[in-house]
Amino acid sequence: MATGLTADEILALRDRHLGRSLSVSYRHPLHIVRGERQFLYDADGRAYLDCVNNVCHVGHGHPRVVEAACRQMSELNTNTRYLHENIVEYARRLSGLFPDPLEVCYFVCSGSEANELALRLARTATGRHDVVVLDEAYHGNTGGMVDLSPYKFAGPGGAGRPEHVHVAPVPDPLRGPYRYGDPSAGQRYALAVADELRAAESRGRPAAAFFAESVPGCAGQIVPPDGFLPSAFEAARSAGALSVADEVQVGFGRVGTHWWGFEAQGAIADIVTLGKPIGNGHPMGAVVTTRAIAEAFENGMEYFNTFGGNPVSCAVGLAVLDVIEEEELMENAHSVGEVLLAGLRELSRIYPIIGDVRGLGLFIGVELVLDPETLEPATEQAAAVVNTMRERGILLSTDGPYRNVIKIKPPLVFQAADADRVVSELGEVLAGSALGVS
Amino acid sequence: MATGLTADEILALRDRHLGRSLSVSYRHPLHIVRGERQFLYDADGRAYLDCVNNVCHVGHGHPRVVEAACRQMSELNTNTRYLHENIVEYARRLSGLFPDPLEVCYFVCSGSEANELALRLARTATGRHDVVVLDEAYHGNTGGMVDLSPYKFAGPGGAGRPEHVHVAPVPDPLRGPYRYGDPSAGQRYALAVADELRAAESRGRPAAAFFAESVPGCAGQIVPPDGFLPSAFEAARSAGALSVADEVQVGFGRVGTHWWGFEAQGAIADIVTLGKPIGNGHPMGAVVTTRAIAEAFENGMEYFNTFGGNPVSCAVGLAVLDVIEEEELMENAHSVGEVLLAGLRELSRIYPIIGDVRGLGLFIGVELVLDPETLEPATEQAAAVVNTMRERGILLSTDGPYRNVIKIKPPLVFQAADADRVVSELGEVLAGSALGVS
Repeated sequence: MATGLTADEILALRDRHLGRSLSVSYRHPLHIVRGERQFLYDADGRAYLDCVNNVCHVGHGHPRVVEAACRQMSELNTNTRYLHENIVEYARRLSGLFPDPLEVCYFVCSGSEANELALRLARTATGRHDVVVLDEAYHGNTGGMVDLSPYKFAGPGGAGRPEHVHVAPVPDPLRGPYRYGDPSAGQRYALAVADELRAAESRGRPAAAFFAESVPGCAGQIVPPDGFLPSAFEAARSAGALSVADEVQVGFGRVGTHWWGFEAQGAIADIVTLGKPIGNGHPMGAVVTTRAIAEAFENGMEYFNTFGGNPVSCAVGLAVLDVIEEEELMENAHSVGEVLLAGLRELSRIYPIIGDVRGLGLFIGVELVLDPETLEPATEQAAAVVNTMRERGILLSTDGPYRNVIKIKPPLVFQAADADRVVSELGEVLAGSALGVS
Repeated sequence: MATGLTADEILALRDRHLGRSLSVSYRHPLHIVRGERQFLYDADGRAYLDCVNNVCHVGHGHPRVVEAACRQMSELNTNTRYLHENIVEYARRLSGLFPDPLEVCYFVCSGSEANELALRLARTATGRHDVVVLDEAYHGNTGGMVDLSPYKFAGPGGAGRPEHVHVAPVPDPLRGPYRYGDPSAGQRYALAVADELRAAESRGRPAAAFFAESVPGCAGQIVPPDGFLPSAFEAARSAGALSVADEVQVGFGRVGTHWWGFEAQGAIADIVTLGKPIGNGHPMGAVVTTRAIAEAFENGMEYFNTFGGNPVSCAVGLAVLDVIEEEELMENAHSVGEVLLAGLRELSRIYPIIGDVRGLGLFIGVELVLDPETLEPATEQAAAVVNTMRERGILLSTDGPYRNVIKIKPPLVFQAADADRVVSELGEVLAGSALGVS
């Protein structure tokens, strides 16, 4: 497809033919033409270490995944109204990765579609309408998911909180009401969820579901304090609501110790939604739930998804599972994540601008602050670090309500040497500029 | 991926690991393992003529599309935050297929996501919330789209019409209030849309949009009477609402005379949504709109779609356009559609059970009735015809509120000989059974 367009020509065409509400990364956008493992290459052949792509999970262009897709594409790609082995093999394999009683799969095209279906399942199973969510959450780009996403509805251009949505605080032990050092912080954040569930009910609007990213992403790569998720899910159960674990960003072994973020916290959800990494870039998503919830959904209305569960998507999904298991990528996420976290924590002892280092496996946040006491966000400095690191060939980005959290969520083939390089270059950037504030 | 599972084993695994609200086609489901051009092959090697797959638009497993996907998959598949040629080449090429002022593209993963985005665009651009739709319409499987789909919300398991949705009659010249022979039927159906727009406004709920499948599908392959769509769109414009043409089923040349169903009727929409055939089975969709509407959407809220517009999807989309143009598939849809329509109309003169034959290009409906006067639907007979034709190696299905409309919407590589075969076998089925009612 290479047509020899320059970056400026591409930018001009984007401006002319694409919606401008889609922005590009970096002050000087990258023109990327090739990817391999944890590296991206620009049009000049320069390599970049990709520390942010949580979609190309098993590595850019993994040959096994590409081969599975190509083989199946040339054989057959049709809908799920005919019998085909791939969909049942994939459903059996995928559901086997979940604790009981999660055993029924629905296949869709994206994380947004997965969360949309989760909401339909919860509403049909409970006969209720409302939803409790966590502040700063992002659950998707459809109308219904923007409604459930404070990150969107309370942000620029947002229309504010819809009446059917109730917002509990992010379980953020750095900035939230309950902080590091408080051994009951997890319980207290769960009580705040229980309060929202109760308040909703007392307004005559009982919740159908409690939606939570198992490890909140857009909120700033937050690792909830111990005990939060099991207690919050229990509070939902007590209130007659279903728990939906949004694993779109963190699922498939990224947290290192378990396949799923909710498991790493000792919780079990009623409905789990999957997306981004599930197909290593192939557009697909899934919902996994219990037989009881699936049966409640059998109310006569068919759920059909044109592309969801097609033989190609299922072949891709199976290949991704093969690679994660055979290359031991969950274990790699754990060990390389430990190296990276240790190095970043070492940096935080030298550079007080690093206000917090947190993470599970290869899902890591480095929060920059101007003052360790007031936690005033170092927003500009975070942007500067990301841009300077990009000049050094390392791709990072920022997130969180103040965009002062550097997020690290690379393909799981990330190596210990890559972790060392990130730490070393980040140290140099912080040392060599006014950013260190040391 | 072939694992040697039997049809019964696949059915048992579906029952165990898939949601049962997903049904299979036919009383005796087909176990399809391969596709090529307009043919599907079962596990025993038997060929079936596919007359219903409007997704594998340029033919099952078209080598050019497969090759484009495979080449790009092994090079790069990442998101739209970096510059890449494919997305701008595809946006330029796709928008060039639309009349002015439709020039801005958004890329998504499915028709449902496209319609969700169209609704967000219309609401943001107008500052209004409500929507006027056509009865029996289907616009997608997300919560918001079930709300806009009388086919769903008024059907089994449906919760009824939501307050923000207003329903105008299907412009059905066989069964609706204005029928064949009434030269003003199109205008009258458009006036009914205008009435709904006005009624919504008078209830203090002015409509953001009028959503219409350009050629209604689930309503029973309806061809609206002349003048309907331009007048209905004009009524929307007068009422301050935007017109959304849902081309998910009929776009990309299927109607034979034009690329888009709305063009075939001399209308221009404000927003057009694309899905199913756009990637020949690859999960993708798009929204095409005007610069003015796209600018109104730039209110500070980013629209980002993880998979939408990725280099692989765009390479696939470009290959599909290449094939449609180089193999002259729109022209083929026109000429083969004419052969098929003529043959079916000939049959209708012999078999009074055929109450109506209608269509544009290769989007055709054959409506079966027990009585040409009362139009009592021949629902069971339609199911019997479909099952008998399947035994003869021809795949059809039924649609419409009474499931008495045999729908024909094959891949566009369908040949005149295939059309002759369908007509001849259908004639035999009608003649050789009690179905003919002749």
